[in-house]
Amino acid sequence: MTAFAARVHARVRELDTRVCLGIDPRPHGHPSTHPAAHDGDPAKTALAVVAYVRTVLDATHDRIACAKPQSAFFEALGVPGVIALAQVLADLRERGIPAILDAKRGDIGSTAEAYAAAYLADGVFAADALTVNAYLGLDTLEPFLDAAVAGERGVFVLVKTSNPGSGDLQDVATDDGRRVHERLADALAARAEQLPADADGYTALGAVAGATYPAELTALRARMPRSLLLVPGYGAQGGTGADAAGAFDAAGLGAVVNASRTLLYPTGGADVAAAARAAATAMRDDLNRALEARRS
Amino acid sequence: MTAFAARVHARVRELDTRVCLGIDPRPHGHPSTHPAAHDGDPAKTALAVVAYVRTVLDATHDRIACAKPQSAFFEALGVPGVIALAQVLADLRERGIPAILDAKRGDIGSTAEAYAAAYLADGVFAADALTVNAYLGLDTLEPFLDAAVAGERGVFVLVKTSNPGSGDLQDVATDDGRRVHERLADALAARAEQLPADADGYTALGAVAGATYPAELTALRARMPRSLLLVPGYGAQGGTGADAAGAFDAAGLGAVVNASRTLLYPTGGADVAAAARAAATAMRDDLNRALEARRS
Repeated sequence: MTAFAARVHARVRELDTRVCLGIDPRPHGHPSTHPAAHDGDPAKTALAVVAYVRTVLDATHDRIACAKPQSAFFEALGVPGVIALAQVLADLRERGIPAILDAKRGDIGSTAEAYAAAYLADGVFAADALTVNAYLGLDTLEPFLDAAVAGERGVFVLVKTSNPGSGDLQDVATDDGRRVHERLADALAARAEQLPADADGYTALGAVAGATYPAELTALRARMPRSLLLVPGYGAQGGTGADAAGAFDAAGLGAVVNASRTLLYPTGGADVAAAARAAATAMRDDLNRALEARRS
Repeated sequence: MTAFAARVHARVRELDTRVCLGIDPRPHGHPSTHPAAHDGDPAKTALAVVAYVRTVLDATHDRIACAKPQSAFFEALGVPGVIALAQVLADLRERGIPAILDAKRGDIGSTAEAYAAAYLADGVFAADALTVNAYLGLDTLEPFLDAAVAGERGVFVLVKTSNPGSGDLQDVATDDGRRVHERLADALAARAEQLPADADGYTALGAVAGATYPAELTALRARMPRSLLLVPGYGAQGGTGADAAGAFDAAGLGAVVNASRTLLYPTGGADVAAAARAAATAMRDDLNRALEARRS
């Protein structure tokens, strides 16, 4: 067993891809999972989602570095939905694809421990990494970091998110001149200094930084040298390969770029497998070209 | 149907209690739910949790204004745990006890819509209110507010949490002299101005503010006049009735004070029902005495 960042980087090196497949199952998004095809029964919809995701995984597995199931879309399907989430996580495990569960959890003390036990320890919802929200304070991250370090898993702390309103709190200027998200980044970087690093210099403490704010993303790469960056906002949200390029270190490591809609529900014909593979390949190449352009 | 804050206040007036029963099922906390009693089988533990919570609800239903199941402890039990959560929510509904689901969700755009659909619309996880995290930005609250207003439900935004490290981000001084949580509070108060208020002046937009920071709590009561406050930190975390008193308006309304461990796992003998009823009664009286002392 190797640490989470090293497992991701092994795939980056082997497959030359930095794509993270966002698994946001929108039952209305595709004919095979449309509730109308199943009389609106959430159990049938959840089963259809699992089958549909398997099709996309089998078509894209060697084009992606990791995958990011979005918990909200599973929770919205009720109990069958969370069973489907467990199944998707098992399917990822079986295929050796690192799973970042995007659940944005965060709570205090023993409650944070319960979330860490649910998602960063062995169990039906076990993921390789979890996204977490640090608004409650740095002490609330410790149970997640403890579980991640102990289990060779990862934590991605929300630092600068990809949405239009992300600046409302994250970009507020503080009394020492740094913005809120910069102060958080510096505090996380200091914490990462105390964590074991792998051969590439990365730790279990990662961060989320959106491709929709390329200047901030590039600055965060420098501020958080020991943190893998999870970069949302590529594709449907408007981020480009050039926007995302700043997330990578000089070796082309240190980040994965997520796309959900454009990969899971690709436009490109009735053959979902072929369209998803083409979309993932195009995104892989776009990111690699942008990295190449940055180098030269 | 009446709006969420009005439903809570109807119980506050009828029962003269401002207690929120925190439902944090810790299987190791009590003999009847201890995993050892069930060979560690999560399904049996989850069933035991449901039965145990029913015992406490039946013993305390007329001593509490509302209840707050903590999602993390259910999620930690896997699929049987989330089924147990659905059952506890149904048990609360059946007893007419408003349920605040403490899940601290938060995400962007259509993902926030999916969380709102899961917890603030009809379905197995339907609650009367949901705790949410606004670090991602004010735009990310809108799907929750839309669902809450449409369904006469409530949203509690984390503003100043009860944990020791809550100041790390929340108390950072910003360039205009206000601290981060104060800026958030002011922005939320402005948003609440645009929402429909009930006869007491309260809206669907509530806030979380801990009893462990009484000065901040009192200040937030004044800053957010249209927001019901959910006050954690009483009891095991060290907050007293006097600490919590500042959360209430002049009429003794506008807040509910949560305790979990001291009510759900009371010390006081083998008769759980009697001990829980005594603990809830004592907390009710403690809060009412503190309010009385403030008035005089």
